[in-house]
Amino acid sequence: MHPRPLSGLRVLDLTRVLAGPYCTLLLADLGAEVVKVEQPVTGDDARAFGPFLQTGQSAYFASINRGKKSIALNLKDSADRETFLSLVNQADVLVENFRAGTMHKLDLSAESLCQRNPRLIYAALSGFGHAGSHTDRAAYDVVVQALSGLMSITGSSADEPVRVGTSISDILTGIFGAVAIVSAVHGRTESGQGTVIDLAMLDCTVAALENAISRFATAGVAPEPLGTRHPSITPFQAFPTADAPIVIAAGNDTLWAALCDCLDRGDLADDSRFSSNGDRTTHHAALETELTTTLATRPADDWLERLADAGVPAAPIRSIDQVVADPHLASRGMWHTMDDGQGGSLLTPGSPFRMNDTPPPLSASIPGLDEHHQEIIAEWLATDSS
Amino acid sequence: MHPRPLSGLRVLDLTRVLAGPYCTLLLADLGAEVVKVEQPVTGDDARAFGPFLQTGQSAYFASINRGKKSIALNLKDSADRETFLSLVNQADVLVENFRAGTMHKLDLSAESLCQRNPRLIYAALSGFGHAGSHTDRAAYDVVVQALSGLMSITGSSADEPVRVGTSISDILTGIFGAVAIVSAVHGRTESGQGTVIDLAMLDCTVAALENAISRFATAGVAPEPLGTRHPSITPFQAFPTADAPIVIAAGNDTLWAALCDCLDRGDLADDSRFSSNGDRTTHHAALETELTTTLATRPADDWLERLADAGVPAAPIRSIDQVVADPHLASRGMWHTMDDGQGGSLLTPGSPFRMNDTPPPLSASIPGLDEHHQEIIAEWLATDSS
Repeated sequence: MHPRPLSGLRVLDLTRVLAGPYCTLLLADLGAEVVKVEQPVTGDDARAFGPFLQTGQSAYFASINRGKKSIALNLKDSADRETFLSLVNQADVLVENFRAGTMHKLDLSAESLCQRNPRLIYAALSGFGHAGSHTDRAAYDVVVQALSGLMSITGSSADEPVRVGTSISDILTGIFGAVAIVSAVHGRTESGQGTVIDLAMLDCTVAALENAISRFATAGVAPEPLGTRHPSITPFQAFPTADAPIVIAAGNDTLWAALCDCLDRGDLADDSRFSSNGDRTTHHAALETELTTTLATRPADDWLERLADAGVPAAPIRSIDQVVADPHLASRGMWHTMDDGQGGSLLTPGSPFRMNDTPPPLSASIPGLDEHHQEIIAEWLATDSS
Repeated sequence: MHPRPLSGLRVLDLTRVLAGPYCTLLLADLGAEVVKVEQPVTGDDARAFGPFLQTGQSAYFASINRGKKSIALNLKDSADRETFLSLVNQADVLVENFRAGTMHKLDLSAESLCQRNPRLIYAALSGFGHAGSHTDRAAYDVVVQALSGLMSITGSSADEPVRVGTSISDILTGIFGAVAIVSAVHGRTESGQGTVIDLAMLDCTVAALENAISRFATAGVAPEPLGTRHPSITPFQAFPTADAPIVIAAGNDTLWAALCDCLDRGDLADDSRFSSNGDRTTHHAALETELTTTLATRPADDWLERLADAGVPAAPIRSIDQVVADPHLASRGMWHTMDDGQGGSLLTPGSPFRMNDTPPPLSASIPGLDEHHQEIIAEWLATDSS
C-alpha cells in the first residue's frame, strides 16, 4: 500500500491562488493535515476563478485544494488572531504566499511566530523573495516568466514571445517549496529547531533554466527561442508529416542510425555533415530540410508505428482531450475525480507520487469555506491552554 | 546560518543526463552526501554533452552535479557488483533513472535491493513509470512534452507547436522526485521502513498542466495555445510598445483600474465590455487591440516606469544576458561560480533554497569521474563487514 509519509504533520496554510496551494496540495497528498486559513466571506481568491462547475464552485480551486480543511479567520480581528496564534502553537509548518511584507504588517512576522513556536517551519513563497535588493514588487506568473528569461528562450522566433501554456513559475515554486519544507521538517528531527524558508518565484524559475545559463556563460551570446528544437541534441524536435506533426528524439548515434534506416535514408547516415551529434547540431538546418522532405511522404501514424518498431523515441503532439483518453495514464491512476457535493463531478490530474506500487489515496471532496472550523478547533486546540 | 537539513543522508545516485541528476543536485544542495555511481571510462552521458569549458569539461554536466562525489563501478563486473551491494547496505536512498526494466536485467531490482536493506528508499525516475500498461518506451524531454499535452497548449498557434525552452519535463520530474524522496525519508523516521518510489516524467508533466485539465473537463473542448495570454485572467499577456514588448498582468479589478489610469484610458475603465475580469476575458481580442494602440505610442522603459509607479505588475521580456546581470538575483545569492580546476570558471544558477536568511553553501568543484573512489570506500564501508 501507499505509505503516507507525512502523516501526522500539521500544516497551517495561509496561501492563496496557485503557487502556495500547489505546494500544500503536494503535502496533503503525502499525508499531511493541511488547514487552509481563509479570509471570511470570500476565502481563497481562487474560489472566484473560472472555469466553474454547474454548482458555481470553481473548478480551478477544486483541482488544487483536494484533501485540505478550511477555517475562516480574520487576521485583523482580535478574537480570530488569538485563535490563529493558538493554531500556530500547534503547527509543524506554516506556509504563506503573500507579497513580501504583508505578514509583518499584520504583526505576524516569521520572527515573532517562530519565537512563539521555535519548532515551526515558516515557509514564505513570494515573487521576488523576502531578502534582497528589490523585493517589494507584485508578481504574477507571466511577470516571472518574462523576467526570468524563460520567455526569451520559448517560442518560434525572438519576435514573437511565448508564455509556457501552464503557470510554470507558480508550479515550480510550489514543488520547490515542498522540497524545502519537507527537508526542514526532516532536519528538525535532529536539530529540534524550526527554519524560516524564503523562496522566490524568480529564483525558482532561474534555477530551472538548465543549460541556457551555461550556454550563455560559455558562448557569451544570449540563447534564442528554437521552436521545438533542442539546442545541443539533433535531431530532437517536431517535424511535419503528410498530415499531423510528430516529434522525434534521436539522442545518440545509435538512434540516429536507426532513424535513417527507418526512413530508408541510408544516404543521410553516410553523410559526413551528420556523422556525430555535434555535426548534426552544426548542420541542423540542412538536416531538418532532408528529414522534412522524407517525413512529408507518409502520415503521422504510419511513421510513429515504424519508429516505435525501430525503438526510435517519437510521439504525436497530443491535445488535452487525447491526453485525458490515454489508457496508460489511466492505468497509472493519474486521473482523479472530484465530487462537487451535489451529484456532479470534475476530472482532475492525480498525484505523480506513486509509492510501493500504489498511487496516493486522494480526497474527492472540495473544502467549503470554513467547513472544518469546529473540527480544527476541537482537534488542534483540545490540549492547548494558551 | 543555512541549516543543512539533509546532512547525514547517504544517497547512492545511479542517475544520468538530467532528470535524475537534477533531483540529486537538490538533495546535495540541502546537505545530503550524494555518491554518483558512474560507468567506467565514459561516466554519466552528460559528461559528453556541450557546451564545453576550455578544459574540455562539459558545462552542462558541471551545472547540475556540484557537490556530488563520483565512483566508477561496472555493474556487470562481479567485484564491482560486490562493492556496489556493500554501498547499498549503507545507503539511505538509491536513485536511478534508467529505462524501466534495466535494473531488473542487471539483477538489481528494487525488490532485491530493499530485501538487502529494508530501510532503503529506492527511487526510480523514468519516462512512463515502472507500473502501468505501456512502460517500455524510451523517453526524452521533447517526447514527454508532446505526449503530455504541454506542447499543445504552448505557442502562438495550433499550427506551430513549441517546446518549452528548457527541458521542463526532466526538471519537473527531478523536483517531484526530491519531494517524494525526502518525504519517504521522513516517513521512515516513524515507520522504520523503506519505500519504493516510481515516478514517471509523463505523470509529473500532466500533474503540472494546472487548469488546462479543468478547462477541458468543464468545457469539453481541448485548450489551444494562447501565445502569452492567460486563459482566464485579462489583461495578462505581452504587448508590443514603441520599441520592445512588455508583459502586463492586471490580475484583478483594482489593477485594471490602475492600468487604465496609467494609460490615460479612462474610456476603457468605463467600457461595459471590460467591467469584470470575466468580461475582459470574453472580449480579450477587442481589449488587446485597444491596449496595443495605446502602448505603441511610447517606448517600453517609459511604460514600465509608469506601471511600476502605479503598482501594476509589468515587466520587460528579458534575455538571458539581462537576467544574468540582474542585481536583485545577485543580492539573493542566485549565481554560483564553478571552478574548472585549471584556473577557469563557469557561471551557473545557484539554489533557490534560501533558509534562515542564507543561501545554501554550494560546492564549486566539478566531480571528476571516479575521483572519490577511495574516499567513498573508506567512509561508507569502514564498518561494513559484508
